[in-house]
Amino acid sequence: MQVNAYAAPAAGEPLAPIVIERREVGPNDVLIQIEWAGICHSDIHTVNGDWGPQPFPVVPGHEIVGKVVEVGSDVSSHQVGDRVGVGCMVNSCGECANCVKGDEQYCLKGMVGTYAATDRDGTTTQGGYSTHVVVDADFVLRVPDGIDAAAAAPLLCAGITTYAPLKNWGAGPGKKVAIVGLGGLGHMGVKLAHALGAEVTVLSQSLKKQEDGLRLGADHYYATSDPATFEELAGQFDLIVNTVSAPIDVDAYLGLLAAGGTLVNVGAPPEPLSLNVFSLIGGGKSFAGSMIGGIAQTQEMLDFCAEHGIGAEIEVISADKVNEAYERVLASDVRYRFVIDASTLA
Amino acid sequence: MQVNAYAAPAAGEPLAPIVIERREVGPNDVLIQIEWAGICHSDIHTVNGDWGPQPFPVVPGHEIVGKVVEVGSDVSSHQVGDRVGVGCMVNSCGECANCVKGDEQYCLKGMVGTYAATDRDGTTTQGGYSTHVVVDADFVLRVPDGIDAAAAAPLLCAGITTYAPLKNWGAGPGKKVAIVGLGGLGHMGVKLAHALGAEVTVLSQSLKKQEDGLRLGADHYYATSDPATFEELAGQFDLIVNTVSAPIDVDAYLGLLAAGGTLVNVGAPPEPLSLNVFSLIGGGKSFAGSMIGGIAQTQEMLDFCAEHGIGAEIEVISADKVNEAYERVLASDVRYRFVIDASTLA
Repeated sequence: MQVNAYAAPAAGEPLAPIVIERREVGPNDVLIQIEWAGICHSDIHTVNGDWGPQPFPVVPGHEIVGKVVEVGSDVSSHQVGDRVGVGCMVNSCGECANCVKGDEQYCLKGMVGTYAATDRDGTTTQGGYSTHVVVDADFVLRVPDGIDAAAAAPLLCAGITTYAPLKNWGAGPGKKVAIVGLGGLGHMGVKLAHALGAEVTVLSQSLKKQEDGLRLGADHYYATSDPATFEELAGQFDLIVNTVSAPIDVDAYLGLLAAGGTLVNVGAPPEPLSLNVFSLIGGGKSFAGSMIGGIAQTQEMLDFCAEHGIGAEIEVISADKVNEAYERVLASDVRYRFVIDASTLA
Repeated sequence: MQVNAYAAPAAGEPLAPIVIERREVGPNDVLIQIEWAGICHSDIHTVNGDWGPQPFPVVPGHEIVGKVVEVGSDVSSHQVGDRVGVGCMVNSCGECANCVKGDEQYCLKGMVGTYAATDRDGTTTQGGYSTHVVVDADFVLRVPDGIDAAAAAPLLCAGITTYAPLKNWGAGPGKKVAIVGLGGLGHMGVKLAHALGAEVTVLSQSLKKQEDGLRLGADHYYATSDPATFEELAGQFDLIVNTVSAPIDVDAYLGLLAAGGTLVNVGAPPEPLSLNVFSLIGGGKSFAGSMIGGIAQTQEMLDFCAEHGIGAEIEVISADKVNEAYERVLASDVRYRFVIDASTLA
């Protein structure tokens, strides 16, 4: 099946229209007509070659929402007409300890990324900036009716990336949670932490987005460029989720944790970070990392968002504006996620 | 009350007999006739001035076991004749969030160390290398009859230091736990992890103590000087407790954790460590720190040790051998803890 898409032809080159081949619908596959595809910063890193050589042309996009148009003979979990989503992975070994536990993102043989990855059949995956995609049914999520379909797309990456650490480290009533950075990930972190019942503080470089932050559900908003912030908030938080990929002063942020608290990075700076072990030992604290979430937890997150009326804050664009959108993401000029209207690719 | 003790007169000088003053027994105090006092590596660091200037003369010792010989008018928790213990702290504010939670070791106003610290009444604390000590009843532990009193002394520091992270990070049946280092702390870690039902691996620099390690309860024993160890054990452990204070290659040890696993340092190298955040994110892993344990958890540990017949492996010495013992500790020539027979001070 030949479908329209937008692809980066080579590292650092502008994305352009392309026609790609989607595989035939196998017994456990679902064919999805894509309606919406979010633009994640990872898409830009990948096509710019920041993360090493890629199998160009690359069709990015791992925040996909659409409608099921065909299902394989063995598929019972999804039906034609269902609204579904696909996130950052489309396959995993299914057999290792992590897959069996439902942590497919930590598959010991390596999960298969939604684009620019080698699928288990040897083909190269192509992502969501496209009209259609064929995905193994086990990696297709149900998108409940309660969420606006376009606003649901970023949940598949930005949503689960922040939901997983919040849930896994106990964000909830009576807990003080800080979200570092108010971008695509951070704004979801604020909404989700608030909906989970936590007291939410945004730690942003400046106070520029303070009004937004409070509107999205934050109880407090502080500028990390002000050294007084680190004094005033010392020992306050049960959990800090750092959504910023730039290197941070880990010891300074650990100083903001209460005893037993955890700082979780969901972004990874390429350089190693330095850390004084006394910052951990002096309060039984932890520095942790978290990467997206398993399929079951992603479904749980979507159901939670539907129940609480949570979607991403988005700006819808047509596919031909994708290069412009990339420029604006790099300039932090988006509140808070671009979503491509995939009907403009047809 | 004037009592005999052994003190370091100045940084780096040999310990020598001294007579010190113990305070009068206040309403909430317990007067303890010390029977046994363990020698902890921290004692040596402190009197050598490795951790900064100290209020010399310093009487070290925070692994204390003895008999109650007098109690204050308000004390109901301990009675004359009881066998009791005192660990690394003898006071805390009792009012901050951490004290209220039972994490007195993380007291926000600073816990009062058993020696070389300023007590809440302004006096300088002096430790367990002494015939008697007066301690606030809330910081006096019950030592159950089931444990040999001399072997119980090291439980008050080495025991709780390893028990707390094992318990707090879920060591138990079905869990794979590694203990890094087989010294005073490590040998307790092995015994406790084994008694908690975990599958225990010792990661030691060499295989020199392998026989000991297996006898103490380890199921497996590997040399960290052999690079093959890090390949063979990749992704194996739910929990690693690092008892070694020398700097380690954090990324290498994080590579030994299964997804969701935690590396807990109970020792702190003075230099900052370097850490690649990808090592955490790639498996939802944590790097944590832990310092001794609260009073309630210390009591729980003593009760657990009594129930499981666990004490430290000790070599009893008379007080006049303390300087020699220090030399041997520094040369790693002790299996696994020196304990001073305090009757030799009388």
